[in-house]
Amino acid sequence: MQTFRVELGPASHPVHVGAGILGSLGNIARDAGIASNRVVLVTDATVERYYASPAIDALGKANFSPEMIVVPAGEASKSFAVLQTVYDRMSSLDRSSAVFALGGGVVGDLAGFAAATYLRGIAVIQVPTSLVAQVDSSLGGKTGINHPQAKNLIGAFHQPRAIVADVDTLRTLPDREFREGLAEVIKYGAIMDAPMVADLERDLDRILSRDDKILEAMVARSLRHKAAVVAADEREGGLRKTLNFGHTVGHALEASAGYGVYLHGEAVAIGMTVAARLSERFAGLSADEGTRLIRLIQRAGLPTEMPANAVTPEFTSALRLDKKRAQDAVEFVLLETLGKALTRRLEFDQVLNALSD
Amino acid sequence: MQTFRVELGPASHPVHVGAGILGSLGNIARDAGIASNRVVLVTDATVERYYASPAIDALGKANFSPEMIVVPAGEASKSFAVLQTVYDRMSSLDRSSAVFALGGGVVGDLAGFAAATYLRGIAVIQVPTSLVAQVDSSLGGKTGINHPQAKNLIGAFHQPRAIVADVDTLRTLPDREFREGLAEVIKYGAIMDAPMVADLERDLDRILSRDDKILEAMVARSLRHKAAVVAADEREGGLRKTLNFGHTVGHALEASAGYGVYLHGEAVAIGMTVAARLSERFAGLSADEGTRLIRLIQRAGLPTEMPANAVTPEFTSALRLDKKRAQDAVEFVLLETLGKALTRRLEFDQVLNALSD
Repeated sequence: MQTFRVELGPASHPVHVGAGILGSLGNIARDAGIASNRVVLVTDATVERYYASPAIDALGKANFSPEMIVVPAGEASKSFAVLQTVYDRMSSLDRSSAVFALGGGVVGDLAGFAAATYLRGIAVIQVPTSLVAQVDSSLGGKTGINHPQAKNLIGAFHQPRAIVADVDTLRTLPDREFREGLAEVIKYGAIMDAPMVADLERDLDRILSRDDKILEAMVARSLRHKAAVVAADEREGGLRKTLNFGHTVGHALEASAGYGVYLHGEAVAIGMTVAARLSERFAGLSADEGTRLIRLIQRAGLPTEMPANAVTPEFTSALRLDKKRAQDAVEFVLLETLGKALTRRLEFDQVLNALSD
Repeated sequence: MQTFRVELGPASHPVHVGAGILGSLGNIARDAGIASNRVVLVTDATVERYYASPAIDALGKANFSPEMIVVPAGEASKSFAVLQTVYDRMSSLDRSSAVFALGGGVVGDLAGFAAATYLRGIAVIQVPTSLVAQVDSSLGGKTGINHPQAKNLIGAFHQPRAIVADVDTLRTLPDREFREGLAEVIKYGAIMDAPMVADLERDLDRILSRDDKILEAMVARSLRHKAAVVAADEREGGLRKTLNFGHTVGHALEASAGYGVYLHGEAVAIGMTVAARLSERFAGLSADEGTRLIRLIQRAGLPTEMPANAVTPEFTSALRLDKKRAQDAVEFVLLETLGKALTRRLEFDQVLNALSD
């Protein structure tokens, strides 16, 4: 097991990454200061089948009396209606209770937001079981639900009291969702850790076969990078923006294709490819390094091509509406070299020209 | 106008108290750093009649384009259903927008919570128009809505970007609601400012006639006291608890009588009377000072007697359920002298005995 801390002043908290550590969940929560025995475990119907029972057992061993709240699997659970059913089941909790979020990004966002807003904020322990959640969304304190007008429109920053990432839970993850998570892993290498890119190139086969040891190292390295960025910049100023590498085009692609056509990581993979090409043109990235990055994304089984006719009016409109927009320019995260990111305002037309090349 | 700051690190913000300052609302908001022109003004149907138009004008003068959201007057608006209608109307806002909460405690709590959770938190400017909101609820960052299981169960701490308390708006406040607010004013004197008690005794007639000058001084003095407590203790540790003087019995009385029978301040007035008597018995308050306090409460037109048969099973159960409970003891805020509060655990039976004396 690897353990390290996210340094956020009074909201600092530990991160534990390892194989089989779900069995220690109760003790980890006690060590993180959860005093009350009354806790809830929020999970979804898919994750419940595999991991609810070991999680409940682990909590019981540390004298917690968990009540389980199972929500439907999928993005539709980030809704007011489901949030209210979660609140309704939290009535036994007090200020020293905790919410355990056992699942992927949807469960983490939903349960995290419920914890953020119950009694003006009680503890949440993030127990991510998908690769995207383990390497990205469980860390950083972003929680929320969707509004019919936009994803994640309603939310709060609420740092977890601890993160417990058991890489054994990745064994049951469908192949497409596992590969999706690799997009975020590759991103960390691209923006801040060139040796990590080389290690991923070397280890990719063992990663794809889900070797425990290599996954522990990969997840921990990813989370350490995110922790460093978040610690330096909790509320998304300049540095945290570099984590959006590949996300500007990625988000526009997701939104215009209709949510659900691409998994988030797949859209980000295409977005990173576009950003690599823009980096060659506008940030001095060498063609060799750009090609290396794109080849790694491809080897991970992720898409790298803008689909034919993707540049629809909906796409360009979504690109303009991206939160990083500034009038007719788009703020893009680009690479100067592999491992070194910068942000640059690109004219909207420059981006569209690159997309049509 | 009196202006001072609530010192809360990065969440520090100014407080403005004065007569006629609603007309400066736009400029005050610009000075507080609200950059976007897109803002919403949340108010209730009663306050709208008197103050929406001057508020909208004041915002327009500073180039804001406010959209008005009017919710029904009354506690029932602190609901999921009303919150969702507020979110629905916020869609034009961006991260640099602001929510203006023009009204009493209900509007402040609801609009504050909407701001706390929109795009993970945008600015809120509290513009309290009731005396309770001006001297208490607008300052401290508590926001939230009710859940069928309990009041304020869903909420967040979200400090306002500025507080603008125009005492002229108190002129249209019904007499009963004005007197309710005086309960909280008297409380500050009781727990931390003995000379304030003497000043209130001297000035009460002018206060009740709603003299502008005296109201400005009274509201500013109250908010300065609350600001000092909150600055020392943002998240309700020891010191902030003393603000609950009179609230333990007050809350139990409100809950057991059925919400709406007593106004909050009326229940607190009775609770302060009980707490004064308990203070004489258990904290060394002199009988003279206890009687002075109770007489001031009475002169303010507030109730001081536990109603006959108030100690019902519902009342004792609500007293036990108070958040300040600890097993069979109740943590009570008591007075050592006028102007000096302490907290003390009292046996449940000691409290009930005092109530039946």
